[in-house]
Amino acid sequence: MRHKIILDTDPGIDDAMAIAYAIAHPEIELLALTTIFGNVRTHEATRNALALLDHWGSDADVAEGEPAPVAMPGNEPSYLVHGRNGFGEIDIPASRRSKHALDAVDYIIEATRKFPGEIVLCAVGPVTNLARLLERDPDVVTRIKAVVVMGGAVHRKGNVTPMAEANFWNDPHAADRVLGAQWPLVLAPLDCTMPVVFTPDYMQALARESPGLGEPLAAMAEFYARFYRSHMGIGGCVPHDVMALSWLTVPGAFRLQKGALAVITNGPAIGQTLFQPGGTQSRARCFDGRPDHMVMVDTDPEMFLADYMMVMTRHAVAGTGN
Amino acid sequence: MRHKIILDTDPGIDDAMAIAYAIAHPEIELLALTTIFGNVRTHEATRNALALLDHWGSDADVAEGEPAPVAMPGNEPSYLVHGRNGFGEIDIPASRRSKHALDAVDYIIEATRKFPGEIVLCAVGPVTNLARLLERDPDVVTRIKAVVVMGGAVHRKGNVTPMAEANFWNDPHAADRVLGAQWPLVLAPLDCTMPVVFTPDYMQALARESPGLGEPLAAMAEFYARFYRSHMGIGGCVPHDVMALSWLTVPGAFRLQKGALAVITNGPAIGQTLFQPGGTQSRARCFDGRPDHMVMVDTDPEMFLADYMMVMTRHAVAGTGN
Repeated sequence: MRHKIILDTDPGIDDAMAIAYAIAHPEIELLALTTIFGNVRTHEATRNALALLDHWGSDADVAEGEPAPVAMPGNEPSYLVHGRNGFGEIDIPASRRSKHALDAVDYIIEATRKFPGEIVLCAVGPVTNLARLLERDPDVVTRIKAVVVMGGAVHRKGNVTPMAEANFWNDPHAADRVLGAQWPLVLAPLDCTMPVVFTPDYMQALARESPGLGEPLAAMAEFYARFYRSHMGIGGCVPHDVMALSWLTVPGAFRLQKGALAVITNGPAIGQTLFQPGGTQSRARCFDGRPDHMVMVDTDPEMFLADYMMVMTRHAVAGTGN
Repeated sequence: MRHKIILDTDPGIDDAMAIAYAIAHPEIELLALTTIFGNVRTHEATRNALALLDHWGSDADVAEGEPAPVAMPGNEPSYLVHGRNGFGEIDIPASRRSKHALDAVDYIIEATRKFPGEIVLCAVGPVTNLARLLERDPDVVTRIKAVVVMGGAVHRKGNVTPMAEANFWNDPHAADRVLGAQWPLVLAPLDCTMPVVFTPDYMQALARESPGLGEPLAAMAEFYARFYRSHMGIGGCVPHDVMALSWLTVPGAFRLQKGALAVITNGPAIGQTLFQPGGTQSRARCFDGRPDHMVMVDTDPEMFLADYMMVMTRHAVAGTGN
């Protein structure tokens, strides 16, 4: 049985890498992209989502999400990292398709009613849509198969401040609610994403072996890698958003740890992930009543990289790419 | 030249380990113990400080410090870790000496006037006295040689909550002010203390080689180790407070990192150390205007353990112990 996926996304360069993988993977049925602000603004994310799906021949739906965080003004998009158009200035032709009539939250509500217990919601941007989903339909927790969130930094430093990772920093109140909810949730924080680097060599091989998917990604990655090189001293780029999907398709690549999670919503550490390992106690009261969730705390980079390359290449060979 | 030390302390079992080392070390001139709450209440810390100095034949002064944190009610003392009397229920006879006429803050002010540029203030409890010192005499920053603070957790989890280390948690406002002050400060956080374990074997050797100092410490350590075994799965006890002195006497045992520091003063992460490495930037504003300080981020346990044993043993052999 294929995984029925809704991918909540703010494309974004690593978002594009995740979308390509979702399209290419024979075990993933991509129902829809739901959009959010973060790397770009929400309406730009919708535009970019439609453009990518068209470019890669997918007819998955695109449902537009929330324009702003649940409880504070929005931060500026990450144009510095992802380029002014979200694709590192690489031109992806605009789609002539329209976004779905339902907004993102209603789309997820409808989809989980149609396929109860079957849908995995993978969120790779700020989780504003997920917080609104819990608000608008609390029963969704009984109908969703699993929620996978790329966000936060558990045992590691953040990437926007020393405390905060970008997705959680962009809507900390939403993140705190989503991590405190009683649904089956897996967190893919920087702990599992930072060990993986798409080097220039890897991206060139991807473009060569799977040109339809790989060429635009390799071009985008050049822009993205420039930021990583100048700001973080990393010789390539980190495909954060792909991990939320890889947890489903190549779970053996990850080391998991169980525990309760919360997010700081104000003050100097705003956006910081808080974690208390399952089965331990402390004098902190902020974890009281919160469920233990699974956290991806480490990754086998070789296994991850081999899987990504294989999935993308097999897609090209199968001739379903373009 | 010997280091002129004032040790700000809440004895406390690992405090006793530090006091013994300060007394034993030929390169340390222990001017005074100033007392603070934390492991016990402040008046109990004064009682314990006097008792230890008498027991080990030191005539260093004891000046009593603040009874409560600078900006919040005090937490309960750590009787669970250090025993109801602060010494793991080991009896150290009460002293007949009196505490100094000056309180801790005035004592430090006077001492730094008498010996400008010579005094190293080593704080191994909550830093309430240091915060009050900065308040009462801002110019002290020009007269103090160095401040070494055992407290916080920089790249590691806390020990009272997953976020907070005990000393900072017991007076986070004071810690935030002390770390933000423009004085030469070195931080000895859990990062440098946790790699070091005093095993039962080590403590027995210490009691054998240096009975005057070592026997009461070994007895106290048994109580302390029970807590470490049951709560943290560590087979021995961690001599946190000694590190603040070892930085002076065996600096090669530590790896240092430079950066700006702050402490969270409210909310779920209260007491957490915030750190931004020197020369890096982020979107966090809480480090603006703060000096870079040195942080002891790692320790060579063998070098530390060998030095502690040697100093204590040489003291016994020199016959100045009892």
